[in-house]
Amino acid sequence: MGKWKKLGIGGLGIVVTLSLLFFFTGTLQTKSQQGKLPKGAEEIARARGLSPQDIEAALKTYVPTGKYDEYIMFSSGGHSGQILVIGVPSMRLLKVIGVFTPEPWQGFGFGSKESGDILKAGYMPVGKDRTLTWADTHHPALSETNGDYDGQYLFINDKANSRIAVIDLRDFETKQIVKTPNMISDHGATFVTPNTEYVIEGGQYAAPIPFSNYAPLEEYKEKYRGLITFHAFDRKKGRIDESRSFQIELPPYWQDLCDAGKKESYGWAFCNSLNTEMATGGIEEGKPPIEAGASQRDMDYLHVINWKKAEEVVRAGKVKEISGIKVIPLETAVSEGILYFIPEPKSPHGVDVAPRGDYIVVSGKLDTHTTIYSFKKIQNAIKAKNFEGKDPYGVPILNFNDVVEAQVEIGLGPLHTQFDDKGNAYTSVFIESTIAKWTLGEPYNPKEKAWKLVEKIPVHYNVGHLVCAEGDTVSPDGKYCVSLNKWSIDRFTPVGPLHPQNFQLIDITGEKMQLLYDMPIGIGEPHYVQMIKADKLSPWLVYPEVGFNPATMSKSDTAPLPGKEKIERKGDTVEVWMTAIRSHFNPERIKVKEGDKVVLHITNIERARDATHGFAIDGYNINLSLEPGETSTVEFVADKPGVYPFYCTEFCSALHLEMAGYLLVEPKK
Amino acid sequence: MGKWKKLGIGGLGIVVTLSLLFFFTGTLQTKSQQGKLPKGAEEIARARGLSPQDIEAALKTYVPTGKYDEYIMFSSGGHSGQILVIGVPSMRLLKVIGVFTPEPWQGFGFGSKESGDILKAGYMPVGKDRTLTWADTHHPALSETNGDYDGQYLFINDKANSRIAVIDLRDFETKQIVKTPNMISDHGATFVTPNTEYVIEGGQYAAPIPFSNYAPLEEYKEKYRGLITFHAFDRKKGRIDESRSFQIELPPYWQDLCDAGKKESYGWAFCNSLNTEMATGGIEEGKPPIEAGASQRDMDYLHVINWKKAEEVVRAGKVKEISGIKVIPLETAVSEGILYFIPEPKSPHGVDVAPRGDYIVVSGKLDTHTTIYSFKKIQNAIKAKNFEGKDPYGVPILNFNDVVEAQVEIGLGPLHTQFDDKGNAYTSVFIESTIAKWTLGEPYNPKEKAWKLVEKIPVHYNVGHLVCAEGDTVSPDGKYCVSLNKWSIDRFTPVGPLHPQNFQLIDITGEKMQLLYDMPIGIGEPHYVQMIKADKLSPWLVYPEVGFNPATMSKSDTAPLPGKEKIERKGDTVEVWMTAIRSHFNPERIKVKEGDKVVLHITNIERARDATHGFAIDGYNINLSLEPGETSTVEFVADKPGVYPFYCTEFCSALHLEMAGYLLVEPKK
Repeated sequence: MGKWKKLGIGGLGIVVTLSLLFFFTGTLQTKSQQGKLPKGAEEIARARGLSPQDIEAALKTYVPTGKYDEYIMFSSGGHSGQILVIGVPSMRLLKVIGVFTPEPWQGFGFGSKESGDILKAGYMPVGKDRTLTWADTHHPALSETNGDYDGQYLFINDKANSRIAVIDLRDFETKQIVKTPNMISDHGATFVTPNTEYVIEGGQYAAPIPFSNYAPLEEYKEKYRGLITFHAFDRKKGRIDESRSFQIELPPYWQDLCDAGKKESYGWAFCNSLNTEMATGGIEEGKPPIEAGASQRDMDYLHVINWKKAEEVVRAGKVKEISGIKVIPLETAVSEGILYFIPEPKSPHGVDVAPRGDYIVVSGKLDTHTTIYSFKKIQNAIKAKNFEGKDPYGVPILNFNDVVEAQVEIGLGPLHTQFDDKGNAYTSVFIESTIAKWTLGEPYNPKEKAWKLVEKIPVHYNVGHLVCAEGDTVSPDGKYCVSLNKWSIDRFTPVGPLHPQNFQLIDITGEKMQLLYDMPIGIGEPHYVQMIKADKLSPWLVYPEVGFNPATMSKSDTAPLPGKEKIERKGDTVEVWMTAIRSHFNPERIKVKEGDKVVLHITNIERARDATHGFAIDGYNINLSLEPGETSTVEFVADKPGVYPFYCTEFCSALHLEMAGYLLVEPKK
Repeated sequence: MGKWKKLGIGGLGIVVTLSLLFFFTGTLQTKSQQGKLPKGAEEIARARGLSPQDIEAALKTYVPTGKYDEYIMFSSGGHSGQILVIGVPSMRLLKVIGVFTPEPWQGFGFGSKESGDILKAGYMPVGKDRTLTWADTHHPALSETNGDYDGQYLFINDKANSRIAVIDLRDFETKQIVKTPNMISDHGATFVTPNTEYVIEGGQYAAPIPFSNYAPLEEYKEKYRGLITFHAFDRKKGRIDESRSFQIELPPYWQDLCDAGKKESYGWAFCNSLNTEMATGGIEEGKPPIEAGASQRDMDYLHVINWKKAEEVVRAGKVKEISGIKVIPLETAVSEGILYFIPEPKSPHGVDVAPRGDYIVVSGKLDTHTTIYSFKKIQNAIKAKNFEGKDPYGVPILNFNDVVEAQVEIGLGPLHTQFDDKGNAYTSVFIESTIAKWTLGEPYNPKEKAWKLVEKIPVHYNVGHLVCAEGDTVSPDGKYCVSLNKWSIDRFTPVGPLHPQNFQLIDITGEKMQLLYDMPIGIGEPHYVQMIKADKLSPWLVYPEVGFNPATMSKSDTAPLPGKEKIERKGDTVEVWMTAIRSHFNPERIKVKEGDKVVLHITNIERARDATHGFAIDGYNINLSLEPGETSTVEFVADKPGVYPFYCTEFCSALHLEMAGYLLVEPKK
């Protein structure tokens, strides 16, 4: 059907030719000009009040048109529920990826069956209204091979509802959301094991197992528990394989951040905890609030977990199945040597494994030190069964002095640590708003240089995590760190009571750390970020074939193709096969009756880079984003009688306004 | 209830003191250092491959930490449904304002009754599922006083569903969404009259009036109509007053962009149209698609509308009331001298009134000229009843040659025009991807300099609109323009098939236009932007009082205040009055029964800038953002039995993880 084809493609030729012409004219420059300062540079800088440091920072961060950033940051979008993709050193926001929250520009959750199914898979397992359309994303984790980022996948958690999402870095789109069974909140997620065998998700607030098993707070110690989930990842399928995932029952402390062991400590994982006091508050009854109750003890417990051993125990069937997932009971975790505790300083947050896997760095927010544990010493103590006792749940506690390697006094409120390629560690210091640089011990540095504070740089303000280039892998790059500040206060032009966050880029190549750039984050409060060398990524520029379904990452059998467009009615269902190309849809008219079910398949048959088409139906809450080659399906009930235009929501050509049609809904008599 | 107060405030004192200390140490610099080039500047620039032009651009755009941007851009977020707030010249995204699409970071549409009510007011008037949770935002409009931005309010349209939103620039939050009666799509929106008497919304795709009155396409000419709405704005209330709004019936052409007359042309409005051919496509039947059918004629019609006269006609009651709004019938619009047509070149897009209100610039996307009409000539022709005829609907058509002042050949695909303070106009040229600078005629320039192309600069790629500093007001600032490019193709590090858009900042102060910066837009495809001097805005830094309700912009009578926290049960309803302060909620424990209705009022009692608290209930799809002083109400049914932690989603203090509590939902027996 339809004799008209490809009108507007001629126009595109002109666009491209003219654009290239201007491009070459505009950017021709000889290599010899590079670095030459322009006339009047000082005058411009003076007029704008730039200091020599500012000028240096400008030169170190500016990325001219058409040149690419050296690093890419994947930032949690905090409670926006999304992922932010940011270029370094330009600190430009390249993309917001819709992950847990429907996002119409990407057509994510606005009618496309593919994205709708992904979102729905993450809904609650109980309740009348099970909808979850937001998340509190905390820690993104890039997939790893041998402990190094491989640029293939990205994972992110939802603290608010205990969920995990998988993003494919071929098209930067969300492929899977898993509602973790039994858990209702998490924090130590996501962290991957060195070959992405598992995506680790440590819980946060204790609850019964499962959380929907009501128990009053009076029974907290008996019935509430912590949990950690090891989500098995099937790299070939690019999906979490829930049938191979497992959980480990933990005492009802509030487990916090986790990190996976690597190299020397491969096979182990480490998680902080807080509230080992098991406070449950009660300010409304005149009791101390949780913040006071949970801050009584000087030490909480670092959880040391042997996940390789846990795997064996799961394989041996020494598990309970609860809510469809295998759970290793706490007593089994203890008896099988899966779980050990180490005292760690008050209100810990960061737990970060050094590049060689040999040291575990813990930071207590109400402390002034980072505390460094030796993995070797931990192993020796475990082998020697050298315990100082057991916690109330029978978990053996290693003696702090037996396993600690060093403590470095760095300032008030240390939080989270990253590493560089020269044996240095960088720790965010929340309460005093600084980044502290300090040295690791042997073999990173000779003994006389070991475990020393080198320098601190102020940040603005209230830094949470920090990130350095590949700074949590087996081979950090050095070069850049970014301070992820929670408060910006006076840093930016005011935009109302809700302030942006402030990402501050720091150059760590010199003798002194140098603040380069303040980037406001005006969409979400990011928690953690990973920074990968841009050349490790090789995303698609268009989908590989026309009729490609991003949900399955394969060509769809049902994708409409040129010449195969049609409309069919079967009973009360009207099925439409539609194509989109600059600048028309085919078909352009869809006639249905009120109450009909409409199933619409649509393919963007373009092959040119950036030739995306949108597809919106007015009044029906439907908008798709169809990138070149993409196919999608929409199902809806035509419940509104009348005349509803549909149109392409992308400014795709000079005739984009004409890329439209009509959905005609005849009313019921 | 509750004896515990303000724990953590002491901690804040330390934070602030230390932060200030570091701040002053870090930024101390003498005025004399300003503009001094740092040692090694050339080396850095050479190593990074920066040309002299790049260096100049870096110096002109870099904004150091703590210094503010000179201009603020309010950008449509395109089909993200939001508004983007961007600083100039740094091109940093300061905030994404949730407008039509629920946004959890801002707590917009995730449980708060206040935001939920605003969103629901914009739902569809017909259908079983009336939900609309996205929009295709096109043209933001700042409120004006005497034709100049006054920095008080911002309006934005939803092309996809014909809706208008109102944002208050005291707190940068959405206050109102109006679903426009009768119309199902718009495009010439939003544009304000010079004292914000009305927010203009011109329709796009013709439909019956109202759109829910089904009529087949065979009856297009008889039953389909265009519409333009004048939404009356009550500045004191900060709301659109629908009782005073009115619509004007138009022929079933597809009305496009509009602009309001100003100064000399005050009281008039101008809208383009396309598809005066009244093509309705039919490619599925072998007919030409709309893009071809709608591009047959050489001329479409500029709609010239006397809204002051329309106001009188409405006051005189010469209207029909349809769907609760007053509509001036087409024949009345003609007979009362409200509506005139002027031929305008093929596929017009931009219609832009010059700063003095004397010229109207129209650009045809399939033309190579901008066409300039004289308002005086239009008035003379109307007075003389000098018409070349009437359209099929009886609308008088002015003679093109009688009213045209000039045509300037600027290149292929001119689109949209802005102005500077020196008598120049800047037009985006879509097909050849350039910005063209050209001169206005008298009185802006002497006759010998009038109506001449001055210069063109290439942009990358496919520019839609452009914006210059206050460039559509009665007093443009010059200085900067931004080219709003729809395609970025090869400009940025690849992030998958869906490419960001590209905002290119251009310095227009010099003899030659200079490209300064490429800003990727990775959230939505913006259409239009307005750029206001930052010092015209004076947003609140915190809410003025504790217990402030942003929906009413007044102190709430029911806001919980310190010492007044409580929980009350009445039948199946549990009502909670809660306060939030670093680092606890009061109360911390809420016990209900499955199926109970929970009404929770919560106030953030902080007074410090940036001390925002979130409030999330796990598993219940609830997240609030409570800025200092803000109060909010959440109503939900506790339909999920079990244990559901609630917590503060902002990293508010060193003990933010402990700012939590438990919702305990006892199951039904």
